[in-house]
Amino acid sequence: MKSKMKIAIVNGSNINILGIREPEIYGKETWDVIEERLEKLADELEVQLQFFQSNHEGDLVDFLQENIMSLDGVVINPAAFTSHGYSILDALTALPTPFVEVHLSNIFSREEYQKETIFAAKAIGHINGFRGYVYSLGLLAIYDYLKQKG
Amino acid sequence: MKSKMKIAIVNGSNINILGIREPEIYGKETWDVIEERLEKLADELEVQLQFFQSNHEGDLVDFLQENIMSLDGVVINPAAFTSHGYSILDALTALPTPFVEVHLSNIFSREEYQKETIFAAKAIGHINGFRGYVYSLGLLAIYDYLKQKG
Amino acid sequence: MKSKMKIAIVNGSNINILGIREPEIYGKETWDVIEERLEKLADELEVQLQFFQSNHEGDLVDFLQENIMSLDGVVINPAAFTSHGYSILDALTALPTPFVEVHLSNIFSREEYQKETIFAAKAIGHINGFRGYVYSLGLLAIYDYLKQKG
Amino acid sequence: MKSKMKIAIVNGSNINILGIREPEIYGKETWDVIEERLEKLADELEVQLQFFQSNHEGDLVDFLQENIMSLDGVVINPAAFTSHGYSILDALTALPTPFVEVHLSNIFSREEYQKETIFAAKAIGHINGFRGYVYSLGLLAIYDYLKQKG
Amino acid sequence: MKSKMKIAIVNGSNINILGIREPEIYGKETWDVIEERLEKLADELEVQLQFFQSNHEGDLVDFLQENIMSLDGVVINPAAFTSHGYSILDALTALPTPFVEVHLSNIFSREEYQKETIFAAKAIGHINGFRGYVYSLGLLAIYDYLKQKG
Amino acid sequence: MKSKMKIAIVNGSNINILGIREPEIYGKETWDVIEERLEKLADELEVQLQFFQSNHEGDLVDFLQENIMSLDGVVINPAAFTSHGYSILDALTALPTPFVEVHLSNIFSREEYQKETIFAAKAIGHINGFRGYVYSLGLLAIYDYLKQKG
Amino acid sequence: MKSKMKIAIVNGSNINILGIREPEIYGKETWDVIEERLEKLADELEVQLQFFQSNHEGDLVDFLQENIMSLDGVVINPAAFTSHGYSILDALTALPTPFVEVHLSNIFSREEYQKETIFAAKAIGHINGFRGYVYSLGLLAIYDYLKQKG
Amino acid sequence: MKSKMKIAIVNGSNINILGIREPEIYGKETWDVIEERLEKLADELEVQLQFFQSNHEGDLVDFLQENIMSLDGVVINPAAFTSHGYSILDALTALPTPFVEVHLSNIFSREEYQKETIFAAKAIGHINGFRGYVYSLGLLAIYDYLKQKG
Amino acid sequence: MKSKMKIAIVNGSNINILGIREPEIYGKETWDVIEERLEKLADELEVQLQFFQSNHEGDLVDFLQENIMSLDGVVINPAAFTSHGYSILDALTALPTPFVEVHLSNIFSREEYQKETIFAAKAIGHINGFRGYVYSLGLLAIYDYLKQKG
Amino acid sequence: MKSKMKIAIVNGSNINILGIREPEIYGKETWDVIEERLEKLADELEVQLQFFQSNHEGDLVDFLQENIMSLDGVVINPAAFTSHGYSILDALTALPTPFVEVHLSNIFSREEYQKETIFAAKAIGHINGFRGYVYSLGLLAIYDYLKQKG
Amino acid sequence: MKSKMKIAIVNGSNINILGIREPEIYGKETWDVIEERLEKLADELEVQLQFFQSNHEGDLVDFLQENIMSLDGVVINPAAFTSHGYSILDALTALPTPFVEVHLSNIFSREEYQKETIFAAKAIGHINGFRGYVYSLGLLAIYDYLKQKG
Amino acid sequence: MKSKMKIAIVNGSNINILGIREPEIYGKETWDVIEERLEKLADELEVQLQFFQSNHEGDLVDFLQENIMSLDGVVINPAAFTSHGYSILDALTALPTPFVEVHLSNIFSREEYQKETIFAAKAIGHINGFRGYVYSLGLLAIYDYLKQKG
Repeated sequence: MKSKMKIAIVNGSNINILGIREPEIYGKETWDVIEERLEKLADELEVQLQFFQSNHEGDLVDFLQENIMSLDGVVINPAAFTSHGYSILDALTALPTPFVEVHLSNIFSREEYQKETIFAAKAIGHINGFRGYVYSLGLLAIYDYLKQKG
Repeated sequence: MKSKMKIAIVNGSNINILGIREPEIYGKETWDVIEERLEKLADELEVQLQFFQSNHEGDLVDFLQENIMSLDGVVINPAAFTSHGYSILDALTALPTPFVEVHLSNIFSREEYQKETIFAAKAIGHINGFRGYVYSLGLLAIYDYLKQKG
Repeated sequence: MKSKMKIAIVNGSNINILGIREPEIYGKETWDVIEERLEKLADELEVQLQFFQSNHEGDLVDFLQENIMSLDGVVINPAAFTSHGYSILDALTALPTPFVEVHLSNIFSREEYQKETIFAAKAIGHINGFRGYVYSLGLLAIYDYLKQKG
Repeated sequence: MKSKMKIAIVNGSNINILGIREPEIYGKETWDVIEERLEKLADELEVQLQFFQSNHEGDLVDFLQENIMSLDGVVINPAAFTSHGYSILDALTALPTPFVEVHLSNIFSREEYQKETIFAAKAIGHINGFRGYVYSLGLLAIYDYLKQKG
Repeated sequence: MKSKMKIAIVNGSNINILGIREPEIYGKETWDVIEERLEKLADELEVQLQFFQSNHEGDLVDFLQENIMSLDGVVINPAAFTSHGYSILDALTALPTPFVEVHLSNIFSREEYQKETIFAAKAIGHINGFRGYVYSLGLLAIYDYLKQKG
Repeated sequence: MKSKMKIAIVNGSNINILGIREPEIYGKETWDVIEERLEKLADELEVQLQFFQSNHEGDLVDFLQENIMSLDGVVINPAAFTSHGYSILDALTALPTPFVEVHLSNIFSREEYQKETIFAAKAIGHINGFRGYVYSLGLLAIYDYLKQKG
Repeated sequence: MKSKMKIAIVNGSNINILGIREPEIYGKETWDVIEERLEKLADELEVQLQFFQSNHEGDLVDFLQENIMSLDGVVINPAAFTSHGYSILDALTALPTPFVEVHLSNIFSREEYQKETIFAAKAIGHINGFRGYVYSLGLLAIYDYLKQKG
Repeated sequence: MKSKMKIAIVNGSNINILGIREPEIYGKETWDVIEERLEKLADELEVQLQFFQSNHEGDLVDFLQENIMSLDGVVINPAAFTSHGYSILDALTALPTPFVEVHLSNIFSREEYQKETIFAAKAIGHINGFRGYVYSLGLLAIYDYLKQKG
Repeated sequence: MKSKMKIAIVNGSNINILGIREPEIYGKETWDVIEERLEKLADELEVQLQFFQSNHEGDLVDFLQENIMSLDGVVINPAAFTSHGYSILDALTALPTPFVEVHLSNIFSREEYQKETIFAAKAIGHINGFRGYVYSLGLLAIYDYLKQKG
Repeated sequence: MKSKMKIAIVNGSNINILGIREPEIYGKETWDVIEERLEKLADELEVQLQFFQSNHEGDLVDFLQENIMSLDGVVINPAAFTSHGYSILDALTALPTPFVEVHLSNIFSREEYQKETIFAAKAIGHINGFRGYVYSLGLLAIYDYLKQKG
Repeated sequence: MKSKMKIAIVNGSNINILGIREPEIYGKETWDVIEERLEKLADELEVQLQFFQSNHEGDLVDFLQENIMSLDGVVINPAAFTSHGYSILDALTALPTPFVEVHLSNIFSREEYQKETIFAAKAIGHINGFRGYVYSLGLLAIYDYLKQKG
Repeated sequence: MKSKMKIAIVNGSNINILGIREPEIYGKETWDVIEERLEKLADELEVQLQFFQSNHEGDLVDFLQENIMSLDGVVINPAAFTSHGYSILDALTALPTPFVEVHLSNIFSREEYQKETIFAAKAIGHINGFRGYVYSLGLLAIYDYLKQKG
């Protein structure tokens, strides 16, 4: 393993407008606030983070193909690609790098299509419903997983 | 409200090749003819139109994120994204700008997947089957809706 | 074609109590207001209208059998007969007179049975969700269709 | 048993416009031609026929309630009431008078809803697909059944 | 509230032939016997009853449209209209007059279609299976409900 | 039959905290108030009541096995055991003692799983939606049933 | 057309033990009795009959391949092959010779799998429920069809 | 709020034999190890923990009824009660105390019934797949939630 | 009953190659070994056995038609005919001779189609999963059944 | 392996009232008669039996957790817990002790829910329909299995 | 491996009448033409071919049982046995000889049942839609597969 | 037809990392090896090839719109777009250029979503399961098709 664990925080479409978008569902925090909190936690854990967001499914695939070999783990919020983003899932499962799936809102209490996730079965674990805090939990979870596997 | 109502006419994939593509289903009119008729109607209604088409789902999301705050309404033909374009739908519902869904062909008399629309339930209304004329009807409908709401 | 286009505006059950009935769904306009607006539009288009409403499915069948040969088109709101009014549908499709289906409310955002329409697949097109204004849009749509075919 | 067997030939909605209505499906014969042929066959069999048709489901119920006790059997084409005419079915099954279900067209080769018949399971038998001749076959079938039962 | 509570007892198709029709399912009591018992109970409760039955769905709609504003409540046995009588349901829900749904037989132990009730979800409550006595229970239930709401 | 009719009022899980638990659905009455009203009605009918409630499915089975032979009838609210309490249902149907199923809330207007009742088909009848008053109606219903059967 | 119409009466498995097998469903007549009645009817109609029965699906296919070109029509009771005898159906539809499907019992009132017929949609018509008499009706029906088509 | 936050860690059936039971799915840690780690984390967060486990669904209901008013939150692993423990869910939702659902294994990658959770939609959030560490994550999540709501 | 009970052991397709065919599922025993063990058990029970196997569904039907009247019972492994061998089932149920269904492998833990058995509901009982020993259990079971019935 | 094979005979709810409960389905034998026959067979096989029955799902889990390590095999009739007793199944599969599932009645010929067994796929085999004799067959089957495995 | 690769070309029912049967679907080539082309290709590849066709499912099973051990591979067109020929599939999978499934017509664009293939999942690959040329492609495919595996 | 046939080989997402990605499913060959083999075959057939691959659905649509008029045929592996790439399918079917669908792995033996292909029904044919060799077979197939149609 490299001197410092490297983990990507990957977000699908419309996460860039967090805070404005339906705040009663996704929370009032903007992404900047969440990113700052994650960087602080990463420092404590001595982990290096890499952030990526796109509204284009293909961009997420390109990013994963290019970076996945240098990453120890991925925390991904597939957002609107959750139910059919097979290209992203194929890129994630092409190599054995582990990933954790997170969702801001409680996907089980929402409409039918928002409950369908093609990522969950292939992830090492799944966290949803705690708004912006799911990224912190996701980072802790993959960190613990990688340490155990160590 | 701004001095002049501003409405976007948004089209999903393959609408740019209208007229060539299966004319017995979609009609023989090219998009230019439809656009011209819409501009004439917009002049009568004193409405400003903004046109956007792309074969890339992500481009439609980017367009909506960048423009939706300056728009009073959207008339959208999601085309091939109708049944699974959740990224587009999320962008449309992120803010309360109303939208109307239109389809050139009668989606109810076509194959099963062409009947499934994830947009209809969130739209203020839905129009399909009148070929190129659906855009005129869509524009009239959102205009009437915005006038009522005042 | 006859000197003046003749179009029937046909309504199923409970449309006669419009305005009183769940106004947050169907709007506050009574049928009289809608009819007046339609007559005005018909004058502009030089179209002759024939109105019919009944709470009895059989009456609608009788009306269509008796009048359909003298009509150029039908704008129909099947209301509570939408999901199972096969007698009405059979009368409409017995002859090639074209018809447009309209609904006051957005049927896609309502309960499951209200989304099922047996008329849509046989109609030339379908319009829903714009409350009383759907009749105006329906009239414009069938007028445009007949003119094109003309 | 009465001196002469009495059998009703009952028809649901739109059978009164037979011959005009989609002749490639239902045949070109009008009801008058079919009725004449049935009367001739009834004479041969020494059976008395009673004809009834209505576009109103309630009328069919009223007719059956009023006549079923004086009838030995019923040949019914429920037409558009086939899949949901429970009122008619309840009237038919209220008393043990046997009935035969007939359909002009091959219901198995048509659209899904046209295959659903709530009458078939309670009928003594079912005949479809031979156009106007199904009534003759139905009459022969119930005649044979009543004769066997003696 | 008016000096005396007014409640309609409404029955769908074939209830007029009660007692003759499959007595092992619906009981041997004719409607007259049930009506008499209801009148006696109404006297005790100081409630005014209004009875209506029809084999025509449209008649039930007409009756409800004409009387529902003068009624405090409705006890309805939709009979054969239970699974698809949307016109009746729309008339009942057009105004906030509460209604109770009753069925003579245990609809849960019968065939599949007899279990499907579109009325139950909109009723204040539902009673089935106690034969003619369900009307007494229905009357007591709506009486208690109106008194509580008082 | 014994000198006095004996009827058990049996309740499943969480009925012991009635009044506190979601009062907008289940009503504000505590169980004590309901029990008192039932005792009064039982006195009028000269019926002896036996009450039993448990949060343990097995306890309900034990109670029924031990008492069912001395009971003339059961009024049961299976509560959370409604959709899968097969052990209770087996105990109830082991002997021909009749039972009535009651529910405080309108199970038809609630979530899908709350509509599924395995008890209804085997009960002599079913009552739901009238809050605490369903027990009174249930007692009247089983009393009437036992008197008829006499 | 040949001087005399030639029609095959084809039966699937277990029809050879008719009369012994569940007579309350299939009737008490043995096949010999039915065949005799058919020969008499054929004489009246001046039709030549060819009989074939087998418990082997492949034998029915072989028979049809060898004879179908010399036949004017087929009356077939696919019996146990009704829901999955695709080989037989393929042989029947390989050439445009018309066929009628018959069943001794009312397939609609039996178990689910007995209602599934892969033959009905491709047959010119379908008759079931009149026991041994279905063959007579089937012969009359195909005779009438061939005469009409002439 | 009380001087110290109080949170229950509640476990369903067979969690008491953790470590022995299918360790490749649930991990090799026994419950004692997990409980120790939780107590340490609780000390850091200044939270008071209450542990409860039972193989009896009714015991879990009794525990929740007795303690829920003194608890600020619940972390629950419903284990084998996940898909049908309605009694437990009713107890949890009877009062507005928030709860988090956790599962040791990735329920999405297991058999169909293990994916069905009736708890998730009513929980504030859901965590699964990180073996014994899910309890730590669940505790952090409810702690963060209560602090935000503070 | 005849002096000695006579029971047929009937096998469907591919049972003749037992031992070679996927031994990890069906076991390593060849049919000869199983037959020998059965003959020994039959001697103990004083039962006469008749063996039959075929890869042809029609042969099994012919065998049953010819022998079923001389048999007291049948132990059948329908093998590949389990889900659609209606001809065999019809032959088995044509007369009231009881039969037991057996399967070498655990059909519940295999693929979906291998769980569907049309025989089980009509059999007196069903045994699967114990490889070659299922025939011994099946023989004991039908022997016990016939002895009880006496 | 211990000097004597030890096998538990485990029964779910209501098996303790066998003989009284619907004897036409479950047989007239009481449990005592069955137990006696099993003890006799166990003596012949030199097997030690341990009996357990409870109406409480949790008790069955407790019993299995406490005894499964000292048992060589389990014969279980899950009775009313067959379709949803996941706690019991989890206890059974926690360790590799093999088990056989038995049912008194033919579960395939009963109502839908009685056919659903969550135990069958994990059992080594399944036996149903031979009333009290299924326990003898189950004991023989697990004995043979353990002997083979030796 | 033997000096020359040996491959069977196996065809199900009605392939013997190719060319006559619905040529717009299956092509105008007779089987002889296809066979000749295959022999030529086999010569080029130095492969020995064995042809077999039958309308009897059992014959195909017998053929496979007798020959599969001497074959290196099978190219099979199951024709009408595609959706339910489990006996054939069992014979093919009894031994590890690889097979390729081919279909003359595009099974995905045909009726529902023609899309269901039980063979595809167990085949090494699947080819459909190129009419008679699918056999050439199938032969090339299995040849390439066997060469790779070497 | 142009002097030289021109065929595009089009690949969806993640085909560019072939060889690295799950080699036990997709084979160990990289795309370069496959492309080389295809060029060699194209030379033999005197066909001109055009290659295109992208992880962006929109890029595939753009490519097809720009090139389809100059192409004689398309061999496409839609990869992760197989089940929902309607934009690509619309582009392919906009003009009558024929296409063949290929898949590296056997889609029928994989997870449910990998079996769903929206392309197959519109393709002239479909080939899957032979790893990198499917492109050779696809090229041969479209070549043969174009030659026949020639």
